[in-house]
Amino acid sequence: MPQSAKNLPKKRPIPTRRSPVVKGGKTAAPPSGAEDDVKITALKLPPGKLSPDMDAYFKKCDEKLGFVPNVLKAFAFDDAKLQAFVDYRQQLVQNAENLSKLEIEMIATVVSSQNRCFYCITAHGNAVRQLGDPVLGEMMVMNYRAARLDKRQRAMLDFAVKLTTTPWEVEEEDRERLRRVGFNDRDIWDIASVAAFYNMTNRLASATDMRPNSVYHGQAR
Amino acid sequence: MPQSAKNLPKKRPIPTRRSPVVKGGKTAAPPSGAEDDVKITALKLPPGKLSPDMDAYFKKCDEKLGFVPNVLKAFAFDDAKLQAFVDYRQQLVQNAENLSKLEIEMIATVVSSQNRCFYCITAHGNAVRQLGDPVLGEMMVMNYRAARLDKRQRAMLDFAVKLTTTPWEVEEEDRERLRRVGFNDRDIWDIASVAAFYNMTNRLASATDMRPNSVYHGQAR
Amino acid sequence: MPQSAKNLPKKRPIPTRRSPVVKGGKTAAPPSGAEDDVKITALKLPPGKLSPDMDAYFKKCDEKLGFVPNVLKAFAFDDAKLQAFVDYRQQLVQNAENLSKLEIEMIATVVSSQNRCFYCITAHGNAVRQLGDPVLGEMMVMNYRAARLDKRQRAMLDFAVKLTTTPWEVEEEDRERLRRVGFNDRDIWDIASVAAFYNMTNRLASATDMRPNSVYHGQAR
Amino acid sequence: MPQSAKNLPKKRPIPTRRSPVVKGGKTAAPPSGAEDDVKITALKLPPGKLSPDMDAYFKKCDEKLGFVPNVLKAFAFDDAKLQAFVDYRQQLVQNAENLSKLEIEMIATVVSSQNRCFYCITAHGNAVRQLGDPVLGEMMVMNYRAARLDKRQRAMLDFAVKLTTTPWEVEEEDRERLRRVGFNDRDIWDIASVAAFYNMTNRLASATDMRPNSVYHGQAR
Amino acid sequence: MPQSAKNLPKKRPIPTRRSPVVKGGKTAAPPSGAEDDVKITALKLPPGKLSPDMDAYFKKCDEKLGFVPNVLKAFAFDDAKLQAFVDYRQQLVQNAENLSKLEIEMIATVVSSQNRCFYCITAHGNAVRQLGDPVLGEMMVMNYRAARLDKRQRAMLDFAVKLTTTPWEVEEEDRERLRRVGFNDRDIWDIASVAAFYNMTNRLASATDMRPNSVYHGQAR
Amino acid sequence: MPQSAKNLPKKRPIPTRRSPVVKGGKTAAPPSGAEDDVKITALKLPPGKLSPDMDAYFKKCDEKLGFVPNVLKAFAFDDAKLQAFVDYRQQLVQNAENLSKLEIEMIATVVSSQNRCFYCITAHGNAVRQLGDPVLGEMMVMNYRAARLDKRQRAMLDFAVKLTTTPWEVEEEDRERLRRVGFNDRDIWDIASVAAFYNMTNRLASATDMRPNSVYHGQAR
Repeated sequence: MPQSAKNLPKKRPIPTRRSPVVKGGKTAAPPSGAEDDVKITALKLPPGKLSPDMDAYFKKCDEKLGFVPNVLKAFAFDDAKLQAFVDYRQQLVQNAENLSKLEIEMIATVVSSQNRCFYCITAHGNAVRQLGDPVLGEMMVMNYRAARLDKRQRAMLDFAVKLTTTPWEVEEEDRERLRRVGFNDRDIWDIASVAAFYNMTNRLASATDMRPNSVYHGQAR
Repeated sequence: MPQSAKNLPKKRPIPTRRSPVVKGGKTAAPPSGAEDDVKITALKLPPGKLSPDMDAYFKKCDEKLGFVPNVLKAFAFDDAKLQAFVDYRQQLVQNAENLSKLEIEMIATVVSSQNRCFYCITAHGNAVRQLGDPVLGEMMVMNYRAARLDKRQRAMLDFAVKLTTTPWEVEEEDRERLRRVGFNDRDIWDIASVAAFYNMTNRLASATDMRPNSVYHGQAR
Repeated sequence: MPQSAKNLPKKRPIPTRRSPVVKGGKTAAPPSGAEDDVKITALKLPPGKLSPDMDAYFKKCDEKLGFVPNVLKAFAFDDAKLQAFVDYRQQLVQNAENLSKLEIEMIATVVSSQNRCFYCITAHGNAVRQLGDPVLGEMMVMNYRAARLDKRQRAMLDFAVKLTTTPWEVEEEDRERLRRVGFNDRDIWDIASVAAFYNMTNRLASATDMRPNSVYHGQAR
Repeated sequence: MPQSAKNLPKKRPIPTRRSPVVKGGKTAAPPSGAEDDVKITALKLPPGKLSPDMDAYFKKCDEKLGFVPNVLKAFAFDDAKLQAFVDYRQQLVQNAENLSKLEIEMIATVVSSQNRCFYCITAHGNAVRQLGDPVLGEMMVMNYRAARLDKRQRAMLDFAVKLTTTPWEVEEEDRERLRRVGFNDRDIWDIASVAAFYNMTNRLASATDMRPNSVYHGQAR
Repeated sequence: MPQSAKNLPKKRPIPTRRSPVVKGGKTAAPPSGAEDDVKITALKLPPGKLSPDMDAYFKKCDEKLGFVPNVLKAFAFDDAKLQAFVDYRQQLVQNAENLSKLEIEMIATVVSSQNRCFYCITAHGNAVRQLGDPVLGEMMVMNYRAARLDKRQRAMLDFAVKLTTTPWEVEEEDRERLRRVGFNDRDIWDIASVAAFYNMTNRLASATDMRPNSVYHGQAR
Repeated sequence: MPQSAKNLPKKRPIPTRRSPVVKGGKTAAPPSGAEDDVKITALKLPPGKLSPDMDAYFKKCDEKLGFVPNVLKAFAFDDAKLQAFVDYRQQLVQNAENLSKLEIEMIATVVSSQNRCFYCITAHGNAVRQLGDPVLGEMMVMNYRAARLDKRQRAMLDFAVKLTTTPWEVEEEDRERLRRVGFNDRDIWDIASVAAFYNMTNRLASATDMRPNSVYHGQAR
């Protein structure tokens, strides 16, 4: 099992989606997400051959989550890119020293909400629902300012949002604000690293119209 | 039954929220939305006496939905204001001539998403899930451009978004774009009226930190 | 007389507009506002039949103001919508508990200026000129920061502007700022209610190219 | 008479401002603009000695307009600066080859409206009222898109606004748009020169809280 | 020698640009700036006859700098405009009482960077390199917040940037901030005057696609 | 030699920086960039032990460039993070199929200019100067619209900029625009991947006040 799989959320049973509502006798349209599990991006990039490592990683995802996240499939046209992505995420996102898994996912969701990235809001909003609770997930998706957070988490998210929207205005004063609520310099690196990473994936997903696995939507509600 | 209650979504059973996750032996925090059903706004405005009409309307809501939407309770400190709100919404939102209930809710959700209004995104995102399908609701919440809409609905939402973000740039060309996809002048009024209404409620909700009934979050997923 | 007419500004004589300047012997073009009293919106919505109540209200306007405001005529294609609009405005704008009529019009003008709404800036700028003084009206139209206001009114307008431009950033701190200058929770509701209402009408007017009665422009200068 | 005085608008009688409205028996506050004719900017820069040329220019203004525009008094702490300002405006604004005086004032007002400059909107909005008509002036102040302009003037103002708000996006395509409606390269220079000049004065006025002569407000209504 | 030439930077030898890199055997394209010394703007405005004063000024530039700045050539289609520009710049930019030449150029570069004006960033970035040091010049071009400035210069640039991006929000508090770090009212005028001037030239340059003399790029590196 | 080192720009002799200008007899301040080679970020993260691979990579950089880029040193507090970063950049940036090295650097510089990232504009602006020509580098830094690019490169940069500033508005139409100028789906991935990567590094650099090696500034001018 590749090291980077260990941080994946626990597998949960996939809920059966209710069949499309039929109104007024008309045959109902298929639900909006139906195509998302088949046509993963707008780019025609035929899947390449997976290395044994990546093949094992996909199997591990399937076993733990019940599916392989579409972002991984989107990278799978080139095994070396996929490997680099998985490793980078492992090292620069999932290995944060003092941030909890929930906090990492909160940053991911809030950054993605600023960038209005359908893929990433869906996937990470789900993770916040799973690791935190359902309403917290919705608040991270809609407006994190609505959440009743402690000072530490609020400062963390304010920093992530400023770094997302006006990175050129981030200065020592902003780092000081993080230190004042208890973060150390390694934490500042980690918060920045997570926020920066999702600013990257948001744009990769938006550029390619990447679609989230439809199963995410119904989980942990 | 007051006329304005007839457009309410059908009652659905309220799902029992799963109890808060307990991690690592710690007593878990209450879920994020727990307080939202009790403390409806940040303003201390004691509820006033409801008129028979409004009292009947609240009872009707409770009967059909299983709860009274918090926005109505927020207005209930002054019965005349509540009545005017319910009537205005009835006449200027729910009585659109050719827009379907789903389309009205799509506009409401997309406008509220632009304004990042926690209350309204929650309530109307739920309505889109109920009247349309769950994934369509999420797309309206996150980024309506991700939805695979027909030209008519896309133009309708583009107009609503422009009217929300840069109303001063709306000109004849924008109305022409609506006419080209089949809307008539009454429809243009209706789209504008719905979009304008939620630009109002979004701001009333944001100004008062209005909280959505927590039951919305789990419905129609 | 419907209750909602009582808050209308006192009737003033309508000034005769000076005839168009003739330059260089050419027959002058008609003044820019000439068409505005005839073609009220860009939508072809034939006027409907007014109910006795609304008919009386129009007569009352004409009697007190010398004209019926075009916004009312714009709603008149559907009597129930007109009635709902008049009632809502009466209850949610004109019935503010502690705000003066002038303050309500200041909020209306400043919000409309943010949204660059020709109709509403014209109508409410006029009202500020009538209820306050001419230069105060111009400042609300152009840049309210230029006015030498006391702390209370400045905080009121700052709140209205923030609620207009970035409602998602309004938080408890903003409400506290209002409380610190003497507003109570009911006042916060009223300020928000007025600001929210004009964010609605601004968009309805912009969406339909609603034109103000030309008589407004010359009044109270 | 200095050459640069010849472009000044014709003198008009200064209307007597109506005395402040007295409400509810209270002694009314002085009208908002009262101080503006005395305290011209927020900077304490004692007036310097005027050269014979500038002294004659001030006298000419007083004779033709009935007052000396405050912007000139604001520069008068340093005669050489005043002279340079008057000359630059004469050469780079008033000497446009094919733009009418009205068009120059339309650009000035629209640019100043974008920058929400109280001084310049007031002074140039007045000039549009005088040279065009009162309602045209109001439209330039509030939202130039509301005016029913021919293609030539609309393109001219669109260019001026883009140059004001996102100058970095102005490209050959924008110049081509001007050429297509009949402007030549000299006209493009002149439009740009006028728009650029008022982007300068707007900022000088905003930086110093420059106040317009209160007489402007009541003229040509 | 006209008074306004005295503030020009000292002449420096013009570096020979290295010839274009030839890659892969292909004849290399001419370097990107080659055309900039020939086609100065996108407008076809034939150069006019220079007055003796302006002719002397051009000669003085050539003698001191080794070239005539293209902005002057761009104005040279009309000698009176050129003269007015040179005089205005002399009086309102170069005659600042207490700002050093370097500080004036820092403001010019930072304002031009906000407006992303290729001409002005190039010319004034060069001046900062010459008068300050090369890296300081780069910081003013890229993001002035990266420079380790004292409080006085930082406040000066913050004011200039606010005046550039949101002049309508500049108020007494902003002037107070300047006074607190030691600037007097004359200095505030001067900072505003310099910032305002470059907001003008930035737009004139952007409107006409004005190109900087290519020699600037290689100087003082 | 690690694979990822092969794409580094050729080593060039490091120019000796001229000593600080001494003016008016005062001892000159050290040049602005002096500290940048010593204090690489604002975070105190002690360097960790490098793996043999990374140690070799640093040596290779030093040999080819004459220095180790500060971004690598900034990651060096944690060897696994450094390795992941180097690999990711190698796979997702430097291995673009059809983009030239110059084009990759053009995207990097233009994205970094949008985000006003001092580190990245400096490093990649230098690379454009080296691989393209000096003036092209400056245009990418200041305003890429000033460069006279062919349609292909212009479309590439427009896409990268839109993906940087409003990723939520990127749609099929934007991908079509790239296809129309000759890019295939793999190229779209690559352009997006490069633009997305620098949106990440820009934010990591801004969050930590990462400083570029001062030697960059003087190279390839």
